[in-house]
Amino acid sequence: MNRCIPSLRRLRLANNTFQQSPPLRLQASRLASQRRWQTQEATTTASNADEGPPPSRSGISQKKIKYTTESYPNIKRDSRFKEINAEDVKYFREVLGADNAIIDGVNQDATDDLEAYNADWMRKYRGQTKLLLKPGSTEQVSKILKYCNENLIAVNPQGGNTGLVGGSVPVFDEIIINLGRMNKVRDFDDVSGILVADAGVILETADNYLAERGHIFPLDLGAKGTCQLGGNIATNAGGLRLLRYGSLHGNVLGLEAVLPDGTIVDDLSKLRKNNTGYDLKQLFIGGEGTIGIVTAVSIICPQRSPAVNVAYFGLESYEKVQEAFKEAKKSLQEILSAFELMDNNSQQIYKRASGAKLPLQGEHPFYCLIETSGSNTDHDSEKLTAFLEHVMGEGIVEDGVVAENETQSQNLWACREGVSEASQHFGGVYKYDLSIPLPELYSLVEETRAKFQESGMMDAEDESKPVIDVIGYGHMGDSNLHINVATRRYDKEVEKVLEPWVFEWVQKRNGSISAEHGLGLAKKEFIGYSRSDTMVKLMKDIKNLYDPNGIMNPYKYI
Amino acid sequence: MNRCIPSLRRLRLANNTFQQSPPLRLQASRLASQRRWQTQEATTTASNADEGPPPSRSGISQKKIKYTTESYPNIKRDSRFKEINAEDVKYFREVLGADNAIIDGVNQDATDDLEAYNADWMRKYRGQTKLLLKPGSTEQVSKILKYCNENLIAVNPQGGNTGLVGGSVPVFDEIIINLGRMNKVRDFDDVSGILVADAGVILETADNYLAERGHIFPLDLGAKGTCQLGGNIATNAGGLRLLRYGSLHGNVLGLEAVLPDGTIVDDLSKLRKNNTGYDLKQLFIGGEGTIGIVTAVSIICPQRSPAVNVAYFGLESYEKVQEAFKEAKKSLQEILSAFELMDNNSQQIYKRASGAKLPLQGEHPFYCLIETSGSNTDHDSEKLTAFLEHVMGEGIVEDGVVAENETQSQNLWACREGVSEASQHFGGVYKYDLSIPLPELYSLVEETRAKFQESGMMDAEDESKPVIDVIGYGHMGDSNLHINVATRRYDKEVEKVLEPWVFEWVQKRNGSISAEHGLGLAKKEFIGYSRSDTMVKLMKDIKNLYDPNGIMNPYKYI
Repeated sequence: MNRCIPSLRRLRLANNTFQQSPPLRLQASRLASQRRWQTQEATTTASNADEGPPPSRSGISQKKIKYTTESYPNIKRDSRFKEINAEDVKYFREVLGADNAIIDGVNQDATDDLEAYNADWMRKYRGQTKLLLKPGSTEQVSKILKYCNENLIAVNPQGGNTGLVGGSVPVFDEIIINLGRMNKVRDFDDVSGILVADAGVILETADNYLAERGHIFPLDLGAKGTCQLGGNIATNAGGLRLLRYGSLHGNVLGLEAVLPDGTIVDDLSKLRKNNTGYDLKQLFIGGEGTIGIVTAVSIICPQRSPAVNVAYFGLESYEKVQEAFKEAKKSLQEILSAFELMDNNSQQIYKRASGAKLPLQGEHPFYCLIETSGSNTDHDSEKLTAFLEHVMGEGIVEDGVVAENETQSQNLWACREGVSEASQHFGGVYKYDLSIPLPELYSLVEETRAKFQESGMMDAEDESKPVIDVIGYGHMGDSNLHINVATRRYDKEVEKVLEPWVFEWVQKRNGSISAEHGLGLAKKEFIGYSRSDTMVKLMKDIKNLYDPNGIMNPYKYI
Repeated sequence: MNRCIPSLRRLRLANNTFQQSPPLRLQASRLASQRRWQTQEATTTASNADEGPPPSRSGISQKKIKYTTESYPNIKRDSRFKEINAEDVKYFREVLGADNAIIDGVNQDATDDLEAYNADWMRKYRGQTKLLLKPGSTEQVSKILKYCNENLIAVNPQGGNTGLVGGSVPVFDEIIINLGRMNKVRDFDDVSGILVADAGVILETADNYLAERGHIFPLDLGAKGTCQLGGNIATNAGGLRLLRYGSLHGNVLGLEAVLPDGTIVDDLSKLRKNNTGYDLKQLFIGGEGTIGIVTAVSIICPQRSPAVNVAYFGLESYEKVQEAFKEAKKSLQEILSAFELMDNNSQQIYKRASGAKLPLQGEHPFYCLIETSGSNTDHDSEKLTAFLEHVMGEGIVEDGVVAENETQSQNLWACREGVSEASQHFGGVYKYDLSIPLPELYSLVEETRAKFQESGMMDAEDESKPVIDVIGYGHMGDSNLHINVATRRYDKEVEKVLEPWVFEWVQKRNGSISAEHGLGLAKKEFIGYSRSDTMVKLMKDIKNLYDPNGIMNPYKYI
């Protein structure tokens, strides 16, 4: 990491004091958790998301996860799909080598335990594949898919398996095609900032590679230590830098992908501009592996900012949060790189789960984390100081801290990034990832909390109640709310309170029922709340065009 | 325009002096020319581009433009397409009213002269439509297209008709559907910066609207006073702000479009994030009206920077230009909003055509224009000064000026934006819009010039020679070169020197034969130089899916 944190003056304004960040004792610092997952490459489970890293394999073996077929009894295996036999396995082993075609009960060493690939990190979805394929080249992916297409064998493409909607693990016996072995950086040009890399490169690995070359990956998310670029593309991951650098639809310059019939889509352009025909690569961005498998990406990466500042502050109401956001946009403009929202409940559950001390002494109903990134330390500090003086002077912000070094920055970020893991720490979590117009964004959290209070299903202490708390946090800069219902166990009664109520609420406000997590299995049935019948019909046309046999990641998406 | 230009210190370094910008006497200032075209809404001719505004109607009538069918005798009218009859006209008049279904020889007033809609502004393409339709609503567009699709009537969607590849005018008798009447801003939210507007809104009108509300359209180009948002989308226009704000693929949040069968694609999302299915709108961005007609757009617009600086400088070699670019990226980073390249030939022809005085006294082989946009005048001036001191101190830049007020900024920009119009001022112009890796970008201009010198076809003074000069300029920040061959007349012999040589040259460097202008008619045959057979085949599948009858903008694109 190439971050220099400028020393900021201690601000004293009226009764408010901008404190020096205390020596935080957070257990799960951002980099630490990332490193933990990154070294487990061989054991990583399976696409990607904005949120925390998947649990360790030892965690998975503690308690068996319910099969998806049990949780979703209405989904039936498509009888058109062939069940694999010895002949199929023989073919795959010829193409990939025996070590890279792993069969349940044959390759039994811990490294290749199929269970870790069958289950998702939230412990909510569990497939029943008997075969895991680990191709090492685009040509191998092509041969595998062609064979599967001709033989009607269903497949489940898989990246780092950090997805949150069950898109990255099989439902039945779809064979898993994990891209983790394709993990090379192919090319980087430090004048244009264009990186070309295999789909299996881990996001953090790519970002570290770029850091050494003065650049930054235009995407950042909590699962960076595990998620892979191919999964990032396939799920159109949003994350923490979208506010500043925009979406993958703008930053991805080219893709290499394999269609079900084995066709290699050779669209790996290294050009910032290329107006020669339909921009087909866009269909794979957010396509969730349903029309092809992304094998490589070309992406424009911005220059890394030498000056990065992180501040964390408490506010008394959501109205004040909105005021602070408007003010930050205005006075920090070109250097604002993140504006994150966390409610007090999110910070308390993070504190409980991690044992960490929070940055501010008193409690506040809301907290925000802002990050600035710029080229000139003095200029940025001056802008940030002016912003903080203004918001404290006007009473918009109650209290806050500014990180003075890299460790403090990481600790502040941990208060935001640790929320996802914390909210499922005590059992399970119902997650909603929503786009909602800013003025009403937080109302949903309040209304959901009220519903559970009325139902008598929620209690922070009483172990007999399924729900512990309802917490709200997210990317304020993108109007993107994460609402997590932290539970002691998965319970259909809890789900009944939430669905379809949450989706109806969002639909009435023309929001999105999945802002950045995608559809997968979890949101498949609810696309109608965010898309018209016409749009869904047009999407199905695309699916049929590219995957007429429907072998790609079936039972999910649309 | 909401621009404050800071007063910069006069820089004196060694033998170099950064001069105060002299009181330039440029004839065709940017705003002036834009205003001229904007007031001609009713008479504007037809999609859009990076370059200058179309000529006035009086200009068009000076000399008849060759029919496209004469220039491209190999293109034959598709006999499947119906020739319109009285019954068809009756239907269109019922839907649109007589005033908005304009028939050759019937509506004869100057405003509705079909000729202005049939011909492109370069005077290179001329169609033969007998019918111009001006729908006033999305529903009317739907009714028109449904009727045309059922009756196999070919159509030519048209925005501001400022395109450079013949994509915005008919080839034969395709009826023109001009979106100019759909010109309302539908919605704007000043917290999120999201604008929703009809396709027929003129780019400059949108930008002015945004300026009043503290925002900026994330796209800017020379034809802004005429081109329309729908055409910008349809051609995936690049232009001057791409370096800073990225492409339309990232900035467009939603579209409303009509498919050939009349289906209204209702994807006009106002959400920054919406991961619910394939991102189909992307196919219309750069689709050049071949699968549907864009009727409205939702787009995220950045905050307008209160501090804008423009500098113009001379350099002795292309190597120095590259050095200056690297240095600008490094030291201006987040405030750099444009880095434009012009060779001396481009500045000389601009001077000759416009009668303008150039900003610097001596001649230099190369010139660059840079623009910074930021939130803090003092900070930006300090960064720019440090950059200029460095590049002059190191001998990277020979001489330069910094604009001290809005007028001077416009005059400096005119030296860049006036090149396109100037290069066709003396007769005609062969234009290539190419993406080429930066180190080799300018070599093509030198090699092309050498070819014409060898051929004996080029002379700046000798009227008997077809070619006047070969000029190079473009968007350095995007590796996007415009190479213009200024001619006294269009001549097949000139074309033979250029094609396919230019395309082969670009192909060898994995460049793009159309960076931002699109394919249209001019580049249709050459897509193979930038796209594989596989990609072209996949594109044709998309075309067939959406437009099985092929009525949308036929004879062009792929």
